[in-house]
Parts: sequence; structure tokens; C-alpha cells
Amino acid sequence: MVGAASNAGGEMLRMMTMHPETELAYVADGFSAGSKLVDIHPAVQTFYDPETVLLSDSDEDLDKILDGSDVLFLAVDPGKVFPIAEKALAKGVKVIDFGADIRFRDSKTWEEWYKVECKYPQMCKDAVYSIPEIWRDQTKGKSLISNPGCYPTASALALFPFVEKGLIEKDSIIVNAVSGSTGAGRRPDFLKMHMVHDGNFRAYGVAGGHRHTPEIEQSVQMIGGEYSKIVFQPHLAPMPRGILVTIYANLKNPITDEEIYQMYLDKYKDEPFVIPHKAGDWPNTKWTVGTNFCHLMGAYEKRTQRLVMASAIDNIGKGAAGQAIQNMNIIFGLPETTGILVPPMFP
Amino acid sequence: MVGAASNAGGEMLRMMTMHPETELAYVADGFSAGSKLVDIHPAVQTFYDPETVLLSDSDEDLDKILDGSDVLFLAVDPGKVFPIAEKALAKGVKVIDFGADIRFRDSKTWEEWYKVECKYPQMCKDAVYSIPEIWRDQTKGKSLISNPGCYPTASALALFPFVEKGLIEKDSIIVNAVSGSTGAGRRPDFLKMHMVHDGNFRAYGVAGGHRHTPEIEQSVQMIGGEYSKIVFQPHLAPMPRGILVTIYANLKNPITDEEIYQMYLDKYKDEPFVIPHKAGDWPNTKWTVGTNFCHLMGAYEKRTQRLVMASAIDNIGKGAAGQAIQNMNIIFGLPETTGILVPPMFP
Amino acid sequence: MVGAASNAGGEMLRMMTMHPETELAYVADGFSAGSKLVDIHPAVQTFYDPETVLLSDSDEDLDKILDGSDVLFLAVDPGKVFPIAEKALAKGVKVIDFGADIRFRDSKTWEEWYKVECKYPQMCKDAVYSIPEIWRDQTKGKSLISNPGCYPTASALALFPFVEKGLIEKDSIIVNAVSGSTGAGRRPDFLKMHMVHDGNFRAYGVAGGHRHTPEIEQSVQMIGGEYSKIVFQPHLAPMPRGILVTIYANLKNPITDEEIYQMYLDKYKDEPFVIPHKAGDWPNTKWTVGTNFCHLMGAYEKRTQRLVMASAIDNIGKGAAGQAIQNMNIIFGLPETTGILVPPMFP
Amino acid sequence: MVGAASNAGGEMLRMMTMHPETELAYVADGFSAGSKLVDIHPAVQTFYDPETVLLSDSDEDLDKILDGSDVLFLAVDPGKVFPIAEKALAKGVKVIDFGADIRFRDSKTWEEWYKVECKYPQMCKDAVYSIPEIWRDQTKGKSLISNPGCYPTASALALFPFVEKGLIEKDSIIVNAVSGSTGAGRRPDFLKMHMVHDGNFRAYGVAGGHRHTPEIEQSVQMIGGEYSKIVFQPHLAPMPRGILVTIYANLKNPITDEEIYQMYLDKYKDEPFVIPHKAGDWPNTKWTVGTNFCHLMGAYEKRTQRLVMASAIDNIGKGAAGQAIQNMNIIFGLPETTGILVPPMFP
Repeated sequence: MVGAASNAGGEMLRMMTMHPETELAYVADGFSAGSKLVDIHPAVQTFYDPETVLLSDSDEDLDKILDGSDVLFLAVDPGKVFPIAEKALAKGVKVIDFGADIRFRDSKTWEEWYKVECKYPQMCKDAVYSIPEIWRDQTKGKSLISNPGCYPTASALALFPFVEKGLIEKDSIIVNAVSGSTGAGRRPDFLKMHMVHDGNFRAYGVAGGHRHTPEIEQSVQMIGGEYSKIVFQPHLAPMPRGILVTIYANLKNPITDEEIYQMYLDKYKDEPFVIPHKAGDWPNTKWTVGTNFCHLMGAYEKRTQRLVMASAIDNIGKGAAGQAIQNMNIIFGLPETTGILVPPMFP
Repeated sequence: MVGAASNAGGEMLRMMTMHPETELAYVADGFSAGSKLVDIHPAVQTFYDPETVLLSDSDEDLDKILDGSDVLFLAVDPGKVFPIAEKALAKGVKVIDFGADIRFRDSKTWEEWYKVECKYPQMCKDAVYSIPEIWRDQTKGKSLISNPGCYPTASALALFPFVEKGLIEKDSIIVNAVSGSTGAGRRPDFLKMHMVHDGNFRAYGVAGGHRHTPEIEQSVQMIGGEYSKIVFQPHLAPMPRGILVTIYANLKNPITDEEIYQMYLDKYKDEPFVIPHKAGDWPNTKWTVGTNFCHLMGAYEKRTQRLVMASAIDNIGKGAAGQAIQNMNIIFGLPETTGILVPPMFP
Repeated sequence: MVGAASNAGGEMLRMMTMHPETELAYVADGFSAGSKLVDIHPAVQTFYDPETVLLSDSDEDLDKILDGSDVLFLAVDPGKVFPIAEKALAKGVKVIDFGADIRFRDSKTWEEWYKVECKYPQMCKDAVYSIPEIWRDQTKGKSLISNPGCYPTASALALFPFVEKGLIEKDSIIVNAVSGSTGAGRRPDFLKMHMVHDGNFRAYGVAGGHRHTPEIEQSVQMIGGEYSKIVFQPHLAPMPRGILVTIYANLKNPITDEEIYQMYLDKYKDEPFVIPHKAGDWPNTKWTVGTNFCHLMGAYEKRTQRLVMASAIDNIGKGAAGQAIQNMNIIFGLPETTGILVPPMFP
Repeated sequence: MVGAASNAGGEMLRMMTMHPETELAYVADGFSAGSKLVDIHPAVQTFYDPETVLLSDSDEDLDKILDGSDVLFLAVDPGKVFPIAEKALAKGVKVIDFGADIRFRDSKTWEEWYKVECKYPQMCKDAVYSIPEIWRDQTKGKSLISNPGCYPTASALALFPFVEKGLIEKDSIIVNAVSGSTGAGRRPDFLKMHMVHDGNFRAYGVAGGHRHTPEIEQSVQMIGGEYSKIVFQPHLAPMPRGILVTIYANLKNPITDEEIYQMYLDKYKDEPFVIPHKAGDWPNTKWTVGTNFCHLMGAYEKRTQRLVMASAIDNIGKGAAGQAIQNMNIIFGLPETTGILVPPMFP
């Protein structure tokens, strides 16, 4: 893994300790190269060699990593994915990327929202963006996987059946999202300090400006065929892990709570990781901590003819590392739940 | 105060210790009568006589209370307000009520949402519902005040300038609300236990069914003249205090972030308790803990032509006890900030 | 399992989902009989049949349970263990008990501290009290295991090498213990509410009166041969899980930090669950959340000639369910780490 | 105030907003000079001029500050106090110092523990170290006050009556201390991040090496006349504010719980800020959040003949800013409770 010092990287390494079919080859990180793995991620201190040191993202280290690996996980800065992935693919190493570089089929969207120029537009077209419960069929046998973002995963799973059937009015979707503090990354600053964030709740970002917005819009378009603008507003809650997205959408026609639940069941009743609940049984983020689960609920608000959905995941579980392992299991032909069907940390 | 064993009651007693112009006459509680005040509310253990016992809401105790008081604060079960308030007013004691009984000018709304029959519709008409920054002019000299609910207070203060000018499209307002655990009351149950709620985030209630919904709708109508349906969805965050409402509304015409800020300034720049912030400076709930402050921000989302607002208060401060004292100061002719201009507990 | 509605029971069920060699036969609970398992323990909602109902501790239900099980886990009220264990053993079912009934070789100690009369003193003598890292040799092939308490486990593992060598002065040990809120049990009350316990730290119990005191004293005596009085004072911290005991003891002779570390290594370097750290690398409780790990550290305070030790475990992991599974693995001849070598929930 | 960007500085500024007899003249900080006060301390954003900028600790700025002030509060790096205090005293400005420079009557202790050379030993002798409830008589009319540290304040108040009467065996005192995260300062690092510290409990420092150790020993000596070595071990709990010290001491003779309570009452029953509790009523740190209170309890452990005490304060309240204001009130002849008799943030 390159970018192993990130929270997503740490969760990959943590989850991998429970995966029976994998072995850690190398860890690398552009920023924390040279540090000991166990100092960066105390969670795995007894699971890997205490002398393991993070390699760098230099060409030399990359060659070493690629020559000894079957799959490369990437969590690197915007723009850095392309040359690394190119080299990996040339060596027959499969790539699963955590970042946004190859998330957009149309690289113009990436250029616009991330303020960078894309020199590898073909790679974006070749990459497969996949939440397995929606697009797993497209990933089998593929070598370059774009692992979806945390908020987009929670959102798309909730919207899937309704968007697919075209029940939602264009441009009416509002995604109010809440994340735990691991979602804000590992770089320490005042707002992330325990004494400040404990007991605090706040929104962040420019209104409408979070970079997960076009990713959710793309998912909706990929599912439903029609482009629809989405309002997406993230918040931070005083807990380390967990995302809850509460989604509001205008429906073209009335629906009942029972029909909503049934539509979720139709999609997900055989899915081990996506758990629909009846209207009123709101998902708790704590049901997902440390897991690859997504708990879902939808209800119809008669007075205002709106569909209200709630979707809970662990931002670095199903929202990053868990889904990456799920995708890895798929492209290597392993049972999809291998190593990631573990219960949440509750209470 | 009757209902003194509630969280709102406890915060009243806590805040009153800092009020130079009041003295506690009696405390009573239907449920906890006979308990010692300091056992119920450790916060004030050194501020009131340790032998003070909560009276009951019996006629005898009420007579005793009313004969020795200038103002009566009520936090009682639905339906119980009317006979107590009637008696108090007859004795010349002013009444400030924390509950919903007299919040609706049209008692039919109350009957419908609270599933009770109102036998005192005239009292509802006589009562003055007042967030001081919006309706303080109507309360001077009045004797029966309905103290607004926590979510409605945070919502109305954010919506005020835009609703008043008719800028918002009918039926387009969505209020996504988050509260700390004191908002769930003092009756212990599994979901309120520390081991369960710590690290957890969830929505609650029936979608569209929270009883604060018609109160927000009434506020909007009182401000703007037009009835508009509102979507209101509450959540609970793992922190003891604080509310953040994030409000989404479609605007009839485009606006700029600067104009939004200016509209807030026009309304609130001389208000000591309502603090507007520029777009991007999102309010933190922790800026309000233990206070009567409301921190506000609005931003315009060009892509989707939506106004996004955030409003933070302490649910039992400006959302209950703080505002009740503010209302009391007004009706007794005291400076409005008396005893409640205190800084938040941060960090 | 009987007593399955407890926190220890919930953690058993949670951990068992990761154990490849076991299958849940029945769950029962004297207090919560008739409830659905998934309502009591949301953590395992997708791992067991959603229709599974908790049986009672009636004779009829016990017969049903015992006829279909190889091992019975018990977490029941003081005094209730004996008749159930007697019946189980008669049917050839092994028993692992979480409570205190059979923890004391001398049942008089139990009678004295728990204020009950012991009618089965022989059963106490037959039971094997075992922290595997200290007494695993005595459990092989045994049928009645007393699973140690949480505080005593953390304490004994820290004290083991020093007590065994007789380095500690008699009556000089002080155990200052801190637990997360799951340690206070599942019965909701005011002090356990999130709004009260969040941000709060306090001691509890009568000074010197916690019932884990004689258990720690017995462990010390079992290890070192000499009876020594111990001061034990527990506290509650605002976190769901985790115990840290900080132990102070007078040494008969000076020692160095390096010698302390070496003594821990000598005992534990091949133990997968007990992890010694060098002086100054204080254990974090969060390194143990959800696991069977114990992180240990000792340092010598030259100025005062005192040994200071810190020992961290998850109170319901190594402190209850994890250790019970470890004991089960041993008595059934499975590799000791089966199903419980999982990483902690960090961050 | 110089050092105004610290947590203690922030709490000074926060508490000062409730003090009727003071006005902020200047704020300065060596490290954060040039920053806006309201950016550094959001708690006071509406209480001071939003354009107020932190001055530096340059000579020029110091002159400006001193010429416009009656009292100077200092929270600066070790060694920096002396020249600043000298200049202030020369200009007739009283000085209250939060640091350790002038805490030790014998400057050798300071040199030894802080690894610096003291060039102003006379200033250490002239300074008055004062917890008002113990040494207020010595501060009246004085100009140079050393404000005690947080742990030493909590410890000395608990030990006072027993040390004064010589009841405690020499070298037997053990102080097990727990602090909230504000106690770890404002410099962000990995261990202080919310995602790491939330749900975590740990000790810190070198065993026996915390610099508050000699300060507690000095207090004991000042009270009781005899030098006694003390074991002091600090921990960090996942809460922003609060200290609980649990103190263990061997008594020369038996005592009863009632006698202990009575000895506390004899000392503190007329003290507004120090609140004794009966044995078993353990203090909660949350009773002190944001205040100058100290809640105390002592109990006798018959089995081991040990006195166990617990003492709770807010580490930046009575442990820093609150006590500094209390000391200021005393030396300026104001009623001692002026501005600081406020209730805690509970719940």
C-alpha cells in the first residue's frame, strides 16, 4: 500500500489482520516514509513485524513494492495516482485507488472540482468505479478499480432503488451528511484537538463545494441515466468513526413506508453488508463501527411528499478500507465477505 | 418553578444563580416531589439551601408557591398548563411556560399534533409566543408568555430575514436538526446510556412527525404571513448540549453570500445574543454551551440555487432556560441581558 | 449462555461471531427472557437469526440448553451458579462462569464479601480459577472454570513476576483502577446517562469495599504464597470500554527499569495477548478495545523506591468474554488464540 | 496578560467577562503575537473587541502593557518570568504568575526539576505561593503572587487537615491524578487529536518525574513542617476539563469516616469554594467544570489502615484561572468570590 500512513491506510492494515488470504508485502507513504509502521498505527502493533518501516513513493521503492505484490492499494495526493498506476498495471499488478483521480469517467469533472489538469483521461475511462452492491458485475477480472468515497457510498446505497426506477424529481436531492473525526484526516490542528472537538458539532466546507458532490451526482447519473444536481453538506460530530447521511428527495408520486422497505429488500435482502430497516428504525452509526456494513432506512413524509432516507456506514470501513477489500475479493475471485464479515464495536 | 426536575428546570436554576435581580421562591415537580433539590440538580448544590425539597403540583402546594412569587415558570406535561396558569394569573403572578400547550395561536394545531382536546382555546390566543429578537415588542407588559421550543428557536432566528422579505419558495424549507443528549430528557433508558450513546449518531422520531414541526411552520407564517409546509428531521449527537440546525431552502431569486450576511447584520447587529457569521464561518455548537447565544451563518449555493443556513444554540440555554429568563427580563422591565450574558464553556 | 443479556454476554456473542469452531446453541437470561436477541444486542443483529429469543433460567429451559450444548457460559446473580453448574456437570457439559460464586477457593471469603451463605463449598474447591497466562496448566481437561474478574485480571498480570519472586513488601500494594462505562452494567440510571457521564470522572464504592479486592488478594496469594492486604479503588471514566489499573508497590530492594521490562519479557514474550512495554511507554486503553489483549508497563521510582505498574485491558474483552473464550479454547484443546486474535478499534 | 494564548490564558479571559471590577487592558503572547484574540479564544468572541490583537512580549509591548495595568498575569515559558516581573514590580504593577518559576521558596528545587539556573533566588523568596484557603493571610498587600499548579492545588486541599495535625506517616502519600485534555496544552499533536484521545485513558510522563511532584511536597512541608516524599502519577482522561486526584496515605492511628468529614468541615465549612462530602459521596469532576470549586471526600479503609481521599477541581478553573482571580481579589481587597462564584456546566 502507498499512502499507508493515512486513516484509510491504517484501517486497511487493521482489517487485513483478519483476512485469511492476504499477506502484507510492503507499506509506503510519501509523507511518513522512514517511520515505523507500529508507531504510525498502534492498532496493529502486535500484528506486523515491529521493525517494519514505511517505504517512500520513490521510483526505486515503487519497483520493490510492485515486484513483490499482487495488488497495490493507493491513498495518495491528487494527481499522483496516474504514473504509479501505469507502472503497476504494466507489471501486471492490480490497482485499487482510494482517491478521486480516477473516480470520474469524464476527467473534465475531476479537473473542474480538483483544479488540476488530467493528463491521463483514458485511464479514467478504463478505471471501474464500483460500490459492489450496485456495480459488482462490471469489476470482475478488471485491474484498475476506483474505490468510492465515503459519503458517496452511503448516499448511493440509499438512493439506488429510487433513482433506478426514476421516482425522484430532478434536482431535488439534498444530502445532509455527518462524519466522525477520522473523516477529517490525521494532520493535527486546533479544530481537531480533543479538547475542542469533544462536545462540538459543526458543518464544514464551502456550501455546495465539497468534492464529493460531483461523485454523488455521477453515481445518480450512472444509476438512473439522468443528470441531476445535488445539494451536499457535510458536518463533523464528536465521535471518531461513523457517517450518517440523511437524504431528502421529492418524489414524483406518493409511496408508502412499506413499499420503500420492500424496494430496499428487493435490492439488498441477499447482500451481507447492506441492511435495510423498516420506517422508524433509524440506523445508528455505532452499528457500523469497524465494519463494512451499511444500515439503511427510508420513510415517506406524507405532508410534504418527500422521501427521507438515512444511511449509516463507518467512514473508513465501508467508506474506505472495507469496501476496498470487498473489491479486492471480487477481482481476485474470493468470496466477497472474506475477512470483512466482522461485528461492530458496540457498545 | 413547577417541573423543576426537568433538564430545562435544572438549567433555569443553574442560570438563576447568576441573576442579580431574582430569588428562588419555591421549586415543585409532579414526578419528583419530595426529593431534595441538590440531589436532582448537582450543578446548584452549593447555591441553594441543601435542605430545599421539591414541592408537588397539588392545589395546596400551588397556592403556597403562587402566594410567594412574582413569576411562575412551568415545565409540565401536555394539558396541565391551563389550570395552573389560570390560577396564577388570577393571583397576579406572571407565567412563563416551557411546554407546547399555549404555543399555538390556533389551538386546533395543538390538538391535532398532541392528540389532546384543548379546553382553554382563549388562553392560547391570549398567550404571547416570543423569541425576543423577533417578537419582543409584543411581550411588554404581558402576563402569559409561551417560551418557544429549542429547535423552533434555532430555526426561526435563521429564517427570519429571508421569510420576512418573502424570498423563499413556498414549501421548500428543510430543517435538518441535531441535538445533544440533554434534549432527550432525564428519564433513563438503554439508548440514553453513556455506553450506548457515546460515539453514536442517529436520527429519531417518525419522519415528519416531530411536534416541533407545526411550531416552526407557525413561526414562518407569523413572520411571513404565508403558510408553508416544512420538513423537519431531528437527530441526536454524542454530546450533552447543543443544537445545530442546517436549513435548506429554495430561493425565488439568486442572492450573494455578502447580501445574506448583510441581511443578518441588518436584523441582528445590535442583538447581544444573536451573532451572524460570514459564509464559510460555520457555527460551532460548543460556542453556545451554557449560554443564551445563537450563532448564525448563511450561504448561497449557486449551482442549485439554494440558501443553506446553519444556526447553533444550547438546547437548554437559548432553547429553553436562557430565553425564558430573557423573556422574564423583558416583561419585568429589566435590561434584557440581565444575568444571562455569560460566555460559553469552551474548550 | 445463561445471563446473555449482560454486557459480558453481549460481548461473548459478538466475539463468538469471529470464532470458527463454535456455534451458538441457546441464549437465556433470567431477567430478559422472551426478548429478541437482536434487540438486546444490536452488535450481532446480522449474525444470528433475527427471531432468536432469549430463554429463561427455568429448569425446563435449562434442560433444553444443556441437552444441546458442549459448554455453558454463566453470568448470573450471586448464588445462582451452583445448582445450574451442578446440573450441567452431571450432563457432561463444561461450565465457564463469569461471576464470583466459585472464584474463591475458600468459600468463606465469598460468604464474607458477598453476604451470602455458600452451600456448595466443595464446588468452590473443585473449580479452577484461571488467567491462562498464569494458571493455564491447571485447566487442561477441567470441566468447571471460574473466569476471573476484569480488575483482578489486569492487576494479576501486572503483578505476576514481582509477586512470584517475592520482591514486593507485604501489605504495600495499592491498585488504582479506572473502567469504562460498560463496567457499570446495563441497568439504566441517572449516573449512567450519557448527558451525566460524558465529560465526567469519578470514583465509586465504599473505600476498600469493592468485591474485587479479595479476588486480587487471592491471586497474589496464589502466585506468591503469602497473604497480603491490598488497597483497591475503582473509578469510572467517560468512555464505553477499557480498564487501566495503575499499581503502586513498595519493593524490598531497588530495581532498574530495564530489569522490570526484562521480567515482563521473561513471562510474556511468547504470550500472544500480553504485551510488555518499556518504562515510559504507558499503555493506552484504546489499544485493547474489543480485544483480548493486555498491555503492560512497569517503572521504578527511585526517589520513593516504589514500583509503578500500568495494565490496560478491555473490561469486557480480556476482562470477561475474551478470556472466557481463551479458557474455552484451552479446555477443548483448541489453539488458544482461536477466534480472539483480532486488532483493537483504534482510532 | 502575557501568555494569553494558553488554555489558562483563555480561561482567564473567559472568567474575566463575569468579573464586575476588572477591565481587560492588554493581551500578549510570545508565540501567538499578532493573532486576533477572538480567533485564539472563540469562547470570548462577543465579549472583547473583535479587532483586539495579541501583543508580543517585546520590551516595547511590555512597557505599553505595564503602563496601562494594575495587575499583570503571566503564563510564560520557564525562566521568562523574572525579568518581566522585575519590570512590573518596579512600575508598581502587581504580578500573578501561573508558571513554576517562583513557586519554590528554595530556588534550588526549581533548578533541579526544571533543569535551569535561577538568577533571581531572592524573587523566589519574596513571592507568595498561595492556595487562599490555606495561605490567604500571607498574601494580603503582597505584590508578587505565585499561583499554584492544578494538581498541587487539588492535592493540598485534600491533605491540609491531616498533614497539619501530623496524622500521616512520613513518605506514605501516593497521589494518583487524572486530568482532562485541556491539561495537555494547546499544541496539536497525534495523541491530542480527538480521534485518538476520545475513548482513551492513559498515564503519562516518567514515573515519579512530573514537575508537580516537588510542588506537592513543598505544600506538605509548608503545612506540616516535615519533608515527606510523595509519589505522584498523572493520567489523561477523555474529557476536556477536570482533575480528580485520588490520594492514598498511611495513618499513624485509626480514624473514623465521621472524624475525617468533621476535620474537613472544621477547615472548610465557611469556605465558598471548597466543599467537603461525607465518605462514599465521591466527587464528580463535572461538578467543577468552568468553576473555582473544589469538591473533597475522605474515607478510612479499616482493613489496611489507609486514608483514601478524592479531590476534584477544574484544572483551568481552581487549577489556574479561577484561583488566580481569587488571589487577585484578595490582594486588591475585593470580596474573595467576586466574579467567580458561578455554577458548573452540568449536565
